[in-house]
Amino acid sequence: MAKPNYLIGVDGGGSKCKAIVYDIAKQTYLSTGLAGPANIALNLPKAKQAIIEACKLAIFNSGLSHLPLEQFAVGAGVAGANDPKAKQALLAWQQPFASLHVTTDLHIACYGAHNSRFGAAIILGTGSCGVSITENQSQDDFLMLGGHGFKLGDKGSGAWLGLHAVQHTLEVLDELSPASMLSQAVIEQSAPDAMQIYSQFEAANSAKFSLLAPLVFSAADQGDALATALLREAAYYINAMIKKLLATKPEGLTLLGGLAPLYLPWLDQTLVDQLSPAQNPPEYGAVFYAQQCQQANLKA
Amino acid sequence: MAKPNYLIGVDGGGSKCKAIVYDIAKQTYLSTGLAGPANIALNLPKAKQAIIEACKLAIFNSGLSHLPLEQFAVGAGVAGANDPKAKQALLAWQQPFASLHVTTDLHIACYGAHNSRFGAAIILGTGSCGVSITENQSQDDFLMLGGHGFKLGDKGSGAWLGLHAVQHTLEVLDELSPASMLSQAVIEQSAPDAMQIYSQFEAANSAKFSLLAPLVFSAADQGDALATALLREAAYYINAMIKKLLATKPEGLTLLGGLAPLYLPWLDQTLVDQLSPAQNPPEYGAVFYAQQCQQANLKA
Repeated sequence: MAKPNYLIGVDGGGSKCKAIVYDIAKQTYLSTGLAGPANIALNLPKAKQAIIEACKLAIFNSGLSHLPLEQFAVGAGVAGANDPKAKQALLAWQQPFASLHVTTDLHIACYGAHNSRFGAAIILGTGSCGVSITENQSQDDFLMLGGHGFKLGDKGSGAWLGLHAVQHTLEVLDELSPASMLSQAVIEQSAPDAMQIYSQFEAANSAKFSLLAPLVFSAADQGDALATALLREAAYYINAMIKKLLATKPEGLTLLGGLAPLYLPWLDQTLVDQLSPAQNPPEYGAVFYAQQCQQANLKA
Repeated sequence: MAKPNYLIGVDGGGSKCKAIVYDIAKQTYLSTGLAGPANIALNLPKAKQAIIEACKLAIFNSGLSHLPLEQFAVGAGVAGANDPKAKQALLAWQQPFASLHVTTDLHIACYGAHNSRFGAAIILGTGSCGVSITENQSQDDFLMLGGHGFKLGDKGSGAWLGLHAVQHTLEVLDELSPASMLSQAVIEQSAPDAMQIYSQFEAANSAKFSLLAPLVFSAADQGDALATALLREAAYYINAMIKKLLATKPEGLTLLGGLAPLYLPWLDQTLVDQLSPAQNPPEYGAVFYAQQCQQANLKA
């Protein structure tokens, strides 16, 4: 097989999948493409489709649609890749690219944030998790915290906040808990009675629950007691993650994901002072990851 | 179609399905049959199979295997029947009996507990919920609390306790929470590391989580802080359910389900004093329900 001329970095999360094309010869990033959710543990066929779609769009937007897909080597950081069975299933895929390298979305976010193989990050988006990659650890042996999905964990994530908001609202509608600003907001955004809310969320995925997360922050800002208690519990957990990751003495620790800026005022200020800003977005990290894998393959 | 000579009462819950045969002419209960879980909202085909199996076993044990199934009218109280779509799907079933009347497992438990169409009950088993049926309310319009399944509710249920025990254990294995008697017990009963526990419980049903519930009670008895906090939260919710159900002025209020006796010391004693013991088990209530439905059909 010919050596690929382009890399594609893919950032596949619980809510969307983003791809970016990188020209190896010119050492420059070209265009991006965006598609739907890509959580390989939750829905592998949908995740594969999202990866293909985002890559093809990025290729199209880069003006390279005339080239065969074998010219592109893909590095993909996808949600759910910490589940070994899911990762194996994705790697077994007969995909059309030159090659496909797979790791977690957290891992590539960390690569991007620090512009380096080393560093630590916490993602606070649809899901939540933390990672630290230090020089002492190999690429496949890094410290990973959380990332167990919103049913068993993902405390502080958008899905976790949304799930608790729904649970609270159902108790309110049963008149077993006093009504709150939060329950009022959930009812306005979803449905007026328990049976309809139950139907909407009974089989809902993390992305659907996550849409309610902003309601928790705004209710807490207005003094809602339950929303405040939820964010305090989440902040307690995130503070513990920060401490645990800092203890690995990473080159830097970055908070990533859509909820990261919203959480800053809730966290321990002495910990926040030790965080570093992200240097590049996750999809750049995915390109960097693909580059590392290609070089390792050449050496092998 | 000939008038059935026998009734079968079915109590279908998240962990097992029990049937009992009743001889209409002799006004006497015959034998019972036991089969697997029958939650029609979670797994309809499996629930149908469990209903058939429990009924056939009960018929066999009653020495009536020579009779055609059209001689038996079934009253079934099944978990998940509060979900209108699930109930509709079960009623659409071309089942082999003279007739099939469907309501919730809670409803027939209530019938059985009070030996009457009227009364209130709280089930604390694999799931949790409360109901009150008073003379002012028709058979299909009773006050129902909770019963939203362990993903969105079922606070205090075995599944809810087990889920929280697993979430806590995963945090402990990430070293984000201090180890506890409860996490130690969960690890001993399931697996020693986070990835194995994740794999065991990631797609687990309520019955599987519920197996961990006794660990929470025993850890709390030994002073475990997290287990104690969980049971206090559950007791707060159950107390609120009791108050709300007592406010409907029911003929009696009974606590049912495998966890009911374990919760008694955790509940408000002045509320416990207002509870009444169950007169008959839920499957008797299902027979009584079938009787009511047959009589209503005759009148119609």
